Amino acid sequence: MNAEIIAVGTELLLGQIVNTNAKYLSEQLAEIGVNVYYHTVVGDNPSRLEKAILHAEERADLIIFTGGLGPTKDDLTKETIAKHIGKSLVLDEDAMKTILSYFEKTGRTMTENNKKQALVLEGAKVLPNEHGMAPGMFLHNQSYSYMLLPGPPHEMQPMFRKYGRLAILDQLETRERIESRVLRYFGIGESQLEVEIEDILDSQTNPTVAPLAGDNEVTLRITARHQSENEAHKMIDEMEKKVNDRVGKYFYGYDQTSIMKELLKVLEEKKLTIACAESLTGGLFQAEMTSVVGVSTMLIGGIVCYSNDAKMKLCNVKKETIDHYGVVSKECAIELAENVRSILGTNIGISFTGVAGPDSLEGHPAGTVWIGISIDNKPSKAFLLNLAGSRNGNQKRSVMYGCHYLLQELKE
Amino acid sequence: MNAEIIAVGTELLLGQIVNTNAKYLSEQLAEIGVNVYYHTVVGDNPSRLEKAILHAEERADLIIFTGGLGPTKDDLTKETIAKHIGKSLVLDEDAMKTILSYFEKTGRTMTENNKKQALVLEGAKVLPNEHGMAPGMFLHNQSYSYMLLPGPPHEMQPMFRKYGRLAILDQLETRERIESRVLRYFGIGESQLEVEIEDILDSQTNPTVAPLAGDNEVTLRITARHQSENEAHKMIDEMEKKVNDRVGKYFYGYDQTSIMKELLKVLEEKKLTIACAESLTGGLFQAEMTSVVGVSTMLIGGIVCYSNDAKMKLCNVKKETIDHYGVVSKECAIELAENVRSILGTNIGISFTGVAGPDSLEGHPAGTVWIGISIDNKPSKAFLLNLAGSRNGNQKRSVMYGCHYLLQELKE
Repeated sequence: MNAEIIAVGTELLLGQIVNTNAKYLSEQLAEIGVNVYYHTVVGDNPSRLEKAILHAEERADLIIFTGGLGPTKDDLTKETIAKHIGKSLVLDEDAMKTILSYFEKTGRTMTENNKKQALVLEGAKVLPNEHGMAPGMFLHNQSYSYMLLPGPPHEMQPMFRKYGRLAILDQLETRERIESRVLRYFGIGESQLEVEIEDILDSQTNPTVAPLAGDNEVTLRITARHQSENEAHKMIDEMEKKVNDRVGKYFYGYDQTSIMKELLKVLEEKKLTIACAESLTGGLFQAEMTSVVGVSTMLIGGIVCYSNDAKMKLCNVKKETIDHYGVVSKECAIELAENVRSILGTNIGISFTGVAGPDSLEGHPAGTVWIGISIDNKPSKAFLLNLAGSRNGNQKRSVMYGCHYLLQELKE
Repeated sequence: MNAEIIAVGTELLLGQIVNTNAKYLSEQLAEIGVNVYYHTVVGDNPSRLEKAILHAEERADLIIFTGGLGPTKDDLTKETIAKHIGKSLVLDEDAMKTILSYFEKTGRTMTENNKKQALVLEGAKVLPNEHGMAPGMFLHNQSYSYMLLPGPPHEMQPMFRKYGRLAILDQLETRERIESRVLRYFGIGESQLEVEIEDILDSQTNPTVAPLAGDNEVTLRITARHQSENEAHKMIDEMEKKVNDRVGKYFYGYDQTSIMKELLKVLEEKKLTIACAESLTGGLFQAEMTSVVGVSTMLIGGIVCYSNDAKMKLCNVKKETIDHYGVVSKECAIELAENVRSILGTNIGISFTGVAGPDSLEGHPAGTVWIGISIDNKPSKAFLLNLAGSRNGNQKRSVMYGCHYLLQELKE
């Protein structure tokens, strides 16, 4: 099966947003063994969109559209496809319910144009939108399959993952599948990782191994073509072992996890509570922690001690510590970690103090960061980072290192 | 002049990287008045690339290629174009010098295949690569212009900015340019905004007005075609006034700003300090604030009172308040805002307490949020939100509403 992804939206052609949907869908399609030979982006213009559809039909049998399903006048994707394949648009009751309940819940008044979102291609399988109003659609017509997905990634991704993927798998005749597993590494660079496993990369056939530099981390995607899942899992397990015999100490998890999620798993298993004192990270560590569901049993809370005043008033840091060692110091990091832990009576206290940048502080260059860790009945520790990123990059990276070091401490 | 951007690279079709080059070039081309009607992505495959070129020639007179100029076997862009238009590839001495000096500098030994990068289309204007080895090219042939740019953004962007842009401007017969301005709105939905200005949208010609639903906000892009900048600014100013006479109360800023940045501007102007108490947002408000440079004069710090325990221990919330009204209450929000403000001695205290979700809390559904605001010599206020998003969506949206309400209070 060959697919083409058509993103519809003038904002893409004006360079206002990046077409991340094409990336996401391409990855997803590769996973299930669907070839993607072209991406196309076209504006909110029916005749140009129809031309794009005609070209796509010359070269693909599955055409996936993103965008143009919204309530406004320039949302024309389904209208254009309906006209192109000679189908009409019909009202989908469930979609209408979703829309009505959305406005009920938010107390906003629904404008007429919102009803347009409940119209779907006749005969199409409707893909529910659990994070927005416009439903998706999947329609097999003559020799082509058409999938329509909403533009906003936070609506499109879960819809495809939960409903779109299955609709396509049902279409696939071939029994050959692609199974893949992503291994995630933190604390090692892409080029270093490649050197460590160069011979494996050079001799790969099936399964294949593809390194990719991610956001402050490196991932390896192991992909196996197979007839049966068991066979695939066996092939992938063997390759994983081979790789991690070399670089296992940097490995932290699989697929869609994050180092924060891995930390929370360990805290949950060990029934540990945590409190945080954040200076240069400004609350980012706790914000990322609370973005995960069910942390309330672990994260009691903490302090954002951005100013020295807050460090003293909220976290009882001694004035002498700041005067004598400065805030960018091992001593300050440890005092913050120990104090926040005792104030909130948790098992763990973690602290971040240092220089986010761009300017230096206390004579320390941007990127100088101390992470303090205090755990029940263990001597407190502090870890020094020398980061070279942007302000935000240094903040994000500090948070990841905090998870990394705390995981190491808890695994000992 | 109509352009199409063709990105060449199998890694794009596998979803390993996002096509940020198309976004960058589209923005640049809009600035100089070149219409972009299509983006195409094709793999490292000569026959499929040639098909893409044929389609592009049906609908554009300027075709810009990114990627496939490197030294490896699968870099085939210029070879494919040369064959397609019947030109040969010739050695460019300057490019060769650049390549040789690169290997000299890095002390690496040059492999033969690197010389391939110095070959250019005969008759093409060579665009020097000041951040890598492969030069770009610009060639006008019959009724088409072809521009070839390297794939890595850090090579492509400066090359286009310094050389590519000028090569295109020289081609342009018209002196007409495009000027645009983005207006940002918060607290109004895309569909409602469109209803409010429907007649303006229907009657638009020059300047044009295009609504776009962003991340929890709506933007309007006003774009004017013009002969002179002054003329353009005048046209855009008039349209902005016309629009904001209707929806001005939701307007908060221009172009690349954010509602948090606008809040920080006001805090700086008025020399005000702020402290925060965050429950359901878990530190996100403070993290977003500290992601901006130079907040240390405004943000003193605050508390992440995720648990009730933390609300009492760190923010002195009375047990009776929690027992009697619950934490999802106006009373708790106001107590948090007032207490964090007095503890840190700031001008402003802001608090967030409520239900991020997915589960309900104290009988309140996910998305129920109270924002408390306490300002010097002003009666404290609390604002109720009923959000309908995901857990993260509710947290992000709460933070934006916090900025929105605080801005309103400070502007009064």
